[in-house]
Amino acid sequence: MVRLDAHINELDTPALLLDLDALERNIETMAEYIRGVPAELRPHEKTHKTPIIAHKQLKAGAIGITCAKLGEAEAMASAGIRDILIANQVVGEPKVTRLVNLAKHSDIIVAVEDSGNVRHLAEAAKSKGVRLNVIIEVDVGNNRCGTAPGDPTLELAREIANHPSLNMRGLMGYEGFCQNIIDLEERREKATEAMAKLVSTRDLLDDKGFSTEIVSAGGTGTHMITAEYPGVTEVEAGSYIFMDTTYSRVEGLEKYDPSLTVLSTITSLPRPGIAICDAGRKTITFEPSRPMPLAKGLEGIIYEASSEEHGRLSVEEGSGLRLGDKIEFIVSHCCTNVNLYDQFHCLRDDHLEAVWEITARGRSQ
Amino acid sequence: MVRLDAHINELDTPALLLDLDALERNIETMAEYIRGVPAELRPHEKTHKTPIIAHKQLKAGAIGITCAKLGEAEAMASAGIRDILIANQVVGEPKVTRLVNLAKHSDIIVAVEDSGNVRHLAEAAKSKGVRLNVIIEVDVGNNRCGTAPGDPTLELAREIANHPSLNMRGLMGYEGFCQNIIDLEERREKATEAMAKLVSTRDLLDDKGFSTEIVSAGGTGTHMITAEYPGVTEVEAGSYIFMDTTYSRVEGLEKYDPSLTVLSTITSLPRPGIAICDAGRKTITFEPSRPMPLAKGLEGIIYEASSEEHGRLSVEEGSGLRLGDKIEFIVSHCCTNVNLYDQFHCLRDDHLEAVWEITARGRSQ
Repeated sequence: MVRLDAHINELDTPALLLDLDALERNIETMAEYIRGVPAELRPHEKTHKTPIIAHKQLKAGAIGITCAKLGEAEAMASAGIRDILIANQVVGEPKVTRLVNLAKHSDIIVAVEDSGNVRHLAEAAKSKGVRLNVIIEVDVGNNRCGTAPGDPTLELAREIANHPSLNMRGLMGYEGFCQNIIDLEERREKATEAMAKLVSTRDLLDDKGFSTEIVSAGGTGTHMITAEYPGVTEVEAGSYIFMDTTYSRVEGLEKYDPSLTVLSTITSLPRPGIAICDAGRKTITFEPSRPMPLAKGLEGIIYEASSEEHGRLSVEEGSGLRLGDKIEFIVSHCCTNVNLYDQFHCLRDDHLEAVWEITARGRSQ
Repeated sequence: MVRLDAHINELDTPALLLDLDALERNIETMAEYIRGVPAELRPHEKTHKTPIIAHKQLKAGAIGITCAKLGEAEAMASAGIRDILIANQVVGEPKVTRLVNLAKHSDIIVAVEDSGNVRHLAEAAKSKGVRLNVIIEVDVGNNRCGTAPGDPTLELAREIANHPSLNMRGLMGYEGFCQNIIDLEERREKATEAMAKLVSTRDLLDDKGFSTEIVSAGGTGTHMITAEYPGVTEVEAGSYIFMDTTYSRVEGLEKYDPSLTVLSTITSLPRPGIAICDAGRKTITFEPSRPMPLAKGLEGIIYEASSEEHGRLSVEEGSGLRLGDKIEFIVSHCCTNVNLYDQFHCLRDDHLEAVWEITARGRSQ
């Protein structure tokens, strides 16, 4: 229904907007950084869920992509992307069958951490005549998934080696707990400690003759630390392309510009100092411990609370805000926010250049 | 890809499940209650966003439906539903044109609170040869949208009366701030106070000769109060069909059963006492000030934290939980949770009876 080349103020709301100049600048800024360090980039697709953005990242030099879910990997493979790390465990039927079937068409690498799951994958791969790439997820302090560093990881590598249908590619470790630490030195200290666990485990496996060509780690908040840590071969940063109010306050990310916003309309001016907009929790995510959305380029307008369909703004006197005015909000958390929308409205110089389908939205299986 | 009649344990995860027996029981329980009180039911569709559920509510006696967004109303009208209250302001282009166009095909009632918006609607309706039904939203204490009770509402009624293209139908007031008050008597006191503001404003308008046939209010938490308040003609409850862990603790709703769950797989058992499942914030919403999801029918398994793709469970010793086990979680907030999914997997006696498309998911414009 929307006309290409329309001005931003003609767009209906709430809409998820993508500033293409900022997006392209962020992709190039990261690519330039990566060209100067030993590690490569395998950007996380869970952030955008959109094949055309993944292709732009690959064109700029990324060696492959990272996905969180098998369903996302299927969507990306359908769009012609070959080198895909599923940085997550794939457990149980029917997922294991889907995984080995997908591996016939793309170069899939899947994270493992459990010997029973390894045997399940091995049997499924064998029965389909596939050699499945696996990578061991090591818990580097995130307290979520992964084998403990050192001997437990070595033990799982031995199990993998028992199965000719599996191809051991290396290790991954996600220092997720470091990503949002605002202070760069504190973040560096904790991320370095995490990488030491990962790389020392890699050394142990190398000593024992296990193949560990890949050591994958990092996110947007730590990429400048993990990509320079000796032994790390690739970083999985994702949010750098969009940014959000959480990452905007994290030191060391100043060269990345917010490219993702939600366009919203002022639908009510119930009393002085308060305005209501049409972007609430179903269109701007609202998670504990994260800063609120931010009115882009506007002083004196604070997004202070939300309900399902409404955002409540506090507005300084003399703002001149009128019913029907449109405001862009930089979102609080880009990854969960994209997951609410079916499309990006892509702008250049405030005019609509393209509408991109978020193909893998909701592909959570 | 999914086979009808499959057992729940054969379903892939995360999946949004709907227990049809519980859903139908909840619809009938509310219908039975409504048959005994003066007010009618106009259930809120923002909860389910799914035409087949709206049709079931209508068949059980509901006089029409309530929508939060014009896009939802369009989806419902496309599915043959005629009597639709949009309980929200429709502001600016292109929405006002969409609204009057839709009013040619369905009996739309739209909430208003601003004289400029009223004039915009009136002109658009006139130019399309439509007589548009409007209802004034009165702020009964929710501190969000709406005219102040009393004279400001009367003033807007006078503005509406200036426009032959508008048909003044009455008033609505949403006591949203009362819905989640656990204590029934405290809730009753506050909701009664809110209804007094609404009905006294109705009386004022009646005295002045303005038509106020509709007085619409209420939600699931207050329906048993507002539906019995003299002068209220209809209640807009929505969540009673699904329930969630927020409403389960609200006194007076014990006769409604949780029908909505997320089915999740245990994907990691990293250490004793902890299990990781595949339902995180992209598949179970996580909002401040609400209780966590609840493992259905299981003792000793607590959903205690989530990240984007993972839920972390604390597990009592001896739970016997194994990798690949599936758990149903009653969600924390049914309305925002449904908005994450494209389909309900509908079960009866633990077997898949139907898959329903959530047609209005993401229809936030």
